[in-house]
Amino acid sequence: MSTLKLQTNYLKSYIQQDELLLLNESVKSIHDDMHNKSSIGNEFLGWLDYPLENHESPIEEMLEIAKEVRNNAKVFVVIGIGGSYLGSKAIQDALSPYFPVDDTFPEVIYAGQNLSGRYLNQLLQFLQYKDVYINVISKSGTTTEPAIAFRILRKYMEEKYGEKANERIIVTTDSEKGALRELANEKGYRSFIIEETIGGRYSVFTPAGLLPLAVQGYDIQALMSGAKKAAIDLQANDIFTNQAYRYAATRQLLLSKGYEVEVLASFEPALKNLHEWWKQLFGESEGKGHDGIFPAAVSFSTDLHSIGQYIQDGKRFLFETLLHFHEVEEDCEVPYDSQNKDQLNYLSDKTLNTINDIATQGTAMAHVEGGVPVISIEVERLDEYHLGYLMFFFMKACAMSAYLQGVNPFDQPGVEAYKSKMFELLGKNIKIVK
Amino acid sequence: MSTLKLQTNYLKSYIQQDELLLLNESVKSIHDDMHNKSSIGNEFLGWLDYPLENHESPIEEMLEIAKEVRNNAKVFVVIGIGGSYLGSKAIQDALSPYFPVDDTFPEVIYAGQNLSGRYLNQLLQFLQYKDVYINVISKSGTTTEPAIAFRILRKYMEEKYGEKANERIIVTTDSEKGALRELANEKGYRSFIIEETIGGRYSVFTPAGLLPLAVQGYDIQALMSGAKKAAIDLQANDIFTNQAYRYAATRQLLLSKGYEVEVLASFEPALKNLHEWWKQLFGESEGKGHDGIFPAAVSFSTDLHSIGQYIQDGKRFLFETLLHFHEVEEDCEVPYDSQNKDQLNYLSDKTLNTINDIATQGTAMAHVEGGVPVISIEVERLDEYHLGYLMFFFMKACAMSAYLQGVNPFDQPGVEAYKSKMFELLGKNIKIVK
Repeated sequence: MSTLKLQTNYLKSYIQQDELLLLNESVKSIHDDMHNKSSIGNEFLGWLDYPLENHESPIEEMLEIAKEVRNNAKVFVVIGIGGSYLGSKAIQDALSPYFPVDDTFPEVIYAGQNLSGRYLNQLLQFLQYKDVYINVISKSGTTTEPAIAFRILRKYMEEKYGEKANERIIVTTDSEKGALRELANEKGYRSFIIEETIGGRYSVFTPAGLLPLAVQGYDIQALMSGAKKAAIDLQANDIFTNQAYRYAATRQLLLSKGYEVEVLASFEPALKNLHEWWKQLFGESEGKGHDGIFPAAVSFSTDLHSIGQYIQDGKRFLFETLLHFHEVEEDCEVPYDSQNKDQLNYLSDKTLNTINDIATQGTAMAHVEGGVPVISIEVERLDEYHLGYLMFFFMKACAMSAYLQGVNPFDQPGVEAYKSKMFELLGKNIKIVK
Repeated sequence: MSTLKLQTNYLKSYIQQDELLLLNESVKSIHDDMHNKSSIGNEFLGWLDYPLENHESPIEEMLEIAKEVRNNAKVFVVIGIGGSYLGSKAIQDALSPYFPVDDTFPEVIYAGQNLSGRYLNQLLQFLQYKDVYINVISKSGTTTEPAIAFRILRKYMEEKYGEKANERIIVTTDSEKGALRELANEKGYRSFIIEETIGGRYSVFTPAGLLPLAVQGYDIQALMSGAKKAAIDLQANDIFTNQAYRYAATRQLLLSKGYEVEVLASFEPALKNLHEWWKQLFGESEGKGHDGIFPAAVSFSTDLHSIGQYIQDGKRFLFETLLHFHEVEEDCEVPYDSQNKDQLNYLSDKTLNTINDIATQGTAMAHVEGGVPVISIEVERLDEYHLGYLMFFFMKACAMSAYLQGVNPFDQPGVEAYKSKMFELLGKNIKIVK
């Protein structure tokens, strides 16, 4: 099969080909504007050609640091929130084992993604007798959550390692501006750059996403190759050749018909954090101007025994995007049992992954019959290369989809609202002179 | 403060008191029918008075088995799907440490909640050199996912322990019927009972929820006391005295005004699985007849940097229920830094949990201003007693809410749809003679 295949055959009773065709002109003109860098939000289009550019030198440097961390630490703490951690966490969880195995790679732990005192306190205790490196990821260095975590962990590192702490702190930030860049220059922290033209949720292929993965021994070169292949495959300017644009146009068409909630569904529990990354990408790009598709996600078959009832029979304002990876390493067979009290012998020649594949099909059929439009995205294998391909596919689809909706895919004005209320309550304005 | 407080002061511009008052008569009559056991689905009302009844003897037995497991196993595998595992998992995750600590209690691992061959294969490898007990939870014993996992794990146990395997398998099932009951009788497994009158998603206070928690050393008696207190507190038949009914009526009123998505939000990451339990409870009870509120959940402040944008600025068809626990054990202080490059010194007299409390308030204010109706549920402490109280509160609210919507809160016809498609594709009808 191909690397990624968008299937729309379950949509026949919901969308007609000529409805899609009507959107093709808009898609073409948005494509041109986007690739000419003349569209709204064009100052944040750096991600578009990023996988096509040469990143050999920072990648080599990351692999070097990864080796160093492996030799000198048991734990690698990644400090970041939103786009500064969701991408690497998504890939880490998709590929790492479900249960702890003895490993030569350091454990990667995330911090600064919440404000829980309990979480940070327990983290400090956990780190107590272990050697640690820290990677702090923030463009500005002043986002409240990661800034607090870094202040606390920096103090911890300096008390533990003295001057040597500076060698164990690696910064991923803007090339010139911001509090983190200043501190890095002063302390001599090693640093990686997030390009000014790439926003958080489009940053998984920059060092923000790559360094934590390299430390865990994931093949970041394969990830980048997958993204590059996607960037090449998805250069056509029309709905019929470009699958990302077809996904985007389909979504917007469904939205215009009253399908306002998209449920992303996978049948492998390890993909939960890929769902979270996807929710940020689409929700933050499109949830603007009192419009946009509300992104939700489910992990099947687990959630077929939960929210599955709603999907089958609830309000008919949702559509489903089934994400299915064909080849998953490792499997397990259903054994034969002569007693057969559980009535499962009819499965005893099958493996779980086969049954899971069939459950996927059965679910799609049941949901379509229940009145849910189902889009299906099939990916060949679950590995770095294919995740790179898929994530770039989603990024390009998301930008197109937001443009079709008429909003800037790259700003997030609503995120400021809770911050300013919080600052007001915390008395920030009073105490701080900028 | 009181154990639990429902705050509706953020709803003023969305709901008028007299609108609520209009629902009070319906609430009263549903209450009477429910407590007289004459409402639709009355064969599944066993949960209603369950916490008021005496369960001393099974609880003592569970505590005995918990002690035995602690002495003889490192891992306790709980096999179940949907309501047979979400309740105990929710409480386990809410109370257990974020990072592994050396512990005298066995590790509790869940299985049979998915169809991933990779998951089960890795689980078998993980168990290899460890002593194991199994608790299989299923009313019928023939639900596909847990039945497959149990068949595989039973074979594993019999190969590992021979005849002695039977002493290490504990069954939680119907008192008389079903494949699991039959097998338990034949093999001499010890067993606990899920009452016939209690459905999966209302079963957290039965041995389905309690045994796994007892094994991990959680205080199941405190949990039951909390549930009992809630069952007593929530016996009034009107909206104004009974907070569960007020929550139910408020939800249905919001639904009737076009607020079709409910976002449950917490500011403690450990509550993610409590959200999952809540999603099953409400989604499976209400998502019927092409109606009902779509339940979604977010973990703040993490998701304020993700789906937060959508909540603030997206389609105005959602309302938010903020779940806030006042006292959380363990905290962490923001240190003073003479350089203050990160501009955080204005926080240096505060702890993270204080800042988190303020972020909660700020978020509620921002979302209300953005056009989102916000319900707030405040709970005194995060511990077994208060979780018991809260979960019973949700159960009673859910039943009332579904009745107000005009559906049976206790069936799940839509869950059968994917099963029958899957069985068709798997050829079950052909190979099995029932």
